[in-house]
Amino acid sequence: MNPIKYMLPESDIPTHWYNIRADLPEPMAPPLHPGTKQPAIAEDMTAIFPMSLVEQEMTTEKWIEIPDEVRQYYAQWRPSPLYRARKLEKVLDTPAKIYYKYEGTSPVGSHKLNTAIAQAYYNREAGITRLSTETGAGQWGTALSLAGQAMGIDVHVYMVKVSFNQKPYRRAMIETYGGHVMASPSDTTEAGRQILAANPDSTGSLGIAISEAVEIARSRTDTNYALGSVLNHVMLHQTVIGQESLKQMEMAGDYPDVVIGCSGGGSNFAGLAFSFIGHNLTQGKKTRIVAVEPASCPSLTKGVMAYDFGDVAGLTPMMKMHTLGHDFMPAAIHAGGLRYHGMSPLVSHLYELGQIEAIAYGQNPCFAAGVQFAQAEGIVPAPESNHAVRSAIDEALRCKAEGRSETILFNLSGHGHLDMQAYIDYHEGGLPDHEFNVDDMALDSLPQV
Amino acid sequence: MNPIKYMLPESDIPTHWYNIRADLPEPMAPPLHPGTKQPAIAEDMTAIFPMSLVEQEMTTEKWIEIPDEVRQYYAQWRPSPLYRARKLEKVLDTPAKIYYKYEGTSPVGSHKLNTAIAQAYYNREAGITRLSTETGAGQWGTALSLAGQAMGIDVHVYMVKVSFNQKPYRRAMIETYGGHVMASPSDTTEAGRQILAANPDSTGSLGIAISEAVEIARSRTDTNYALGSVLNHVMLHQTVIGQESLKQMEMAGDYPDVVIGCSGGGSNFAGLAFSFIGHNLTQGKKTRIVAVEPASCPSLTKGVMAYDFGDVAGLTPMMKMHTLGHDFMPAAIHAGGLRYHGMSPLVSHLYELGQIEAIAYGQNPCFAAGVQFAQAEGIVPAPESNHAVRSAIDEALRCKAEGRSETILFNLSGHGHLDMQAYIDYHEGGLPDHEFNVDDMALDSLPQV
Repeated sequence: MNPIKYMLPESDIPTHWYNIRADLPEPMAPPLHPGTKQPAIAEDMTAIFPMSLVEQEMTTEKWIEIPDEVRQYYAQWRPSPLYRARKLEKVLDTPAKIYYKYEGTSPVGSHKLNTAIAQAYYNREAGITRLSTETGAGQWGTALSLAGQAMGIDVHVYMVKVSFNQKPYRRAMIETYGGHVMASPSDTTEAGRQILAANPDSTGSLGIAISEAVEIARSRTDTNYALGSVLNHVMLHQTVIGQESLKQMEMAGDYPDVVIGCSGGGSNFAGLAFSFIGHNLTQGKKTRIVAVEPASCPSLTKGVMAYDFGDVAGLTPMMKMHTLGHDFMPAAIHAGGLRYHGMSPLVSHLYELGQIEAIAYGQNPCFAAGVQFAQAEGIVPAPESNHAVRSAIDEALRCKAEGRSETILFNLSGHGHLDMQAYIDYHEGGLPDHEFNVDDMALDSLPQV
Repeated sequence: MNPIKYMLPESDIPTHWYNIRADLPEPMAPPLHPGTKQPAIAEDMTAIFPMSLVEQEMTTEKWIEIPDEVRQYYAQWRPSPLYRARKLEKVLDTPAKIYYKYEGTSPVGSHKLNTAIAQAYYNREAGITRLSTETGAGQWGTALSLAGQAMGIDVHVYMVKVSFNQKPYRRAMIETYGGHVMASPSDTTEAGRQILAANPDSTGSLGIAISEAVEIARSRTDTNYALGSVLNHVMLHQTVIGQESLKQMEMAGDYPDVVIGCSGGGSNFAGLAFSFIGHNLTQGKKTRIVAVEPASCPSLTKGVMAYDFGDVAGLTPMMKMHTLGHDFMPAAIHAGGLRYHGMSPLVSHLYELGQIEAIAYGQNPCFAAGVQFAQAEGIVPAPESNHAVRSAIDEALRCKAEGRSETILFNLSGHGHLDMQAYIDYHEGGLPDHEFNVDDMALDSLPQV
């Protein structure tokens, strides 16, 4: 048989997370305390994070050991499969070889559980009994609810209102796992009430939902905050994806010329890409690394590299990152997880260093790619993941035009079974593709530093 | 680490399907031609099935070779994982060991693709370019649409109207794969028009949808019919599940005392159970085999063993099976796939021979079990599969009460991500549990033989 699936034994679940900060040619700019505007110290973050995660956020140590209990939990679905997309290659009639790492076999259907279980573990170890968080597409809220259930932690999820209304199946998943869901902006926080006073019809944003979740975590000693993307420790936890992929590509006797991931806050992209960037930096490899973002929320391709808050209310430390301004309100596209005003500071830094390319696509070409992929490979991708699929297909078509047999690897970060309303809308005549207008950027909301 | 997942290499994908008819202590009663009431011959079925499948329907040969192309396709997700449910065991505080075979890793999220791809393959080999079929819960229609796409066959799905309305995500999946969906009863067939004339508000049944699909297949030479359950060849194709499970239980150093599957038409139940019944019959094993059905459609526990039609219009051969009468209209429960008036003749025969036990449950205890399972094990089961989960939990609790450490194995035939409306309704105050009334049986619709 022609191999299409590369599986690793349980013993190949990584024992350590890979910290790309150890290999950076230039260090990142530090986060700043929002009051003093001085580099933030650990104690600035322990009000909402356990010290163990704050240490992971700040360290430049190359390998961080994964706790046994987390590895044991990973074993339910990890190592995840890596596929050769032979049927898609045939449909495209391309000389390129297309591989994809599939994170949809996790019980929640996406990569988010890789960090959710780690964060819930460290919080439980620190004696925390409640976690508050935000969710956009719903992938993260689902994952943290299950992780909280596993670790005996009560999870409260502020869900961006547009997703809350668009995605009842996501809410049902969160509630099935025992989590609690509030539509954001809500009247349960000062931040939410302020937004609602100014705009009662606000459909929310990740930046608003983060403000609400952080406010709750700061006001209660039993409660911490958990973030599903953006921060260094989240990128770190996701590196199990890339480490497994390195071994699986070796099984396939191949190595990628191009590595692709969709990028909202940056976590699934970083999870796959950082291991390959590390090889570029330390082993002389020359793999192209491509981050794909929605044209309506193009923080890498259109945003500026500047200090900004992670949330709308300005409760978080200021981080140097690619941003559209924390007051930016993205259009209500279906890929709800890719609607964040900023980009992971680590991903942004690598972009500035020229280690990463970025490209932006509208919704319709992404869903067209998702349907083509589903018909060939069977898996219906999550709306977010469709961005990576679009880019992978376009790279394969470029290879065809150029007559080159390159090796393409992308991250299929999740399946779309819980997001089929997006496909219904697509089948019923296409989705709106919001043209991005530079005037929509909220750069005047950037803080002075 | 404590092993929780048992994975087989690709080389352990079965090379043959197991035909339990070779090991039966007594032969099955033959199907009868609806006109002559004589045993049906192959030619009676070739109007709607390819000869290769008709032969599989009739043969008593023990092992049927799986075509290379079908095995290659299986390799995308097979061998599927077998799990030890250690977290559920802990929650239940039971001395029992609980294992489950998980078929939700197929790209369509259920076991149905095992037979869909085989049926599409044989039809393509016979030159067929269109398939018509019915679907209840939507699992089957989804699987056949993808299989048709893989084999270049156009798929037309008559979807029971109550599911068509309850499950828009299922329709979206079928359409994403390129299939066509009609709500049944429809005005596209004589059978549908008759039902609508008598009852314009009919929400349909599997028996009606089968009539519509068979009618189309009989009237067009380019079109065959495909059935997702009930028939011998469908049970046959599903035996890859049980064969893999035998090897995986051996890996675990264990052997089941009880094997459990939910049962509507019988296909996922048979897929897991037949291999173990085979060992009971030929190797002196004494595993209890339990079929679990919904209390509102209890063909095994309340129906009669009699010749009946597979559909409402009486277009199919008459099959000797457990039936509630082909005019029986089941209540509109969420486990749409378990709403068939009859039961696989092969499963029915084994029940009559005392090789199988059967038990019926209402919707609410099944969903309570599904939520308990999801919180412990992470996977949200399909509404159908919740019936098997309920029975497995009850067996584990019995073991606890009796202080016995038995080994329980059940088939988790699919995930519930596309059926979360059922969980929403459950969370919002419980589902109606329709008390079965023997007067609802339609035994006067049984044909004279």
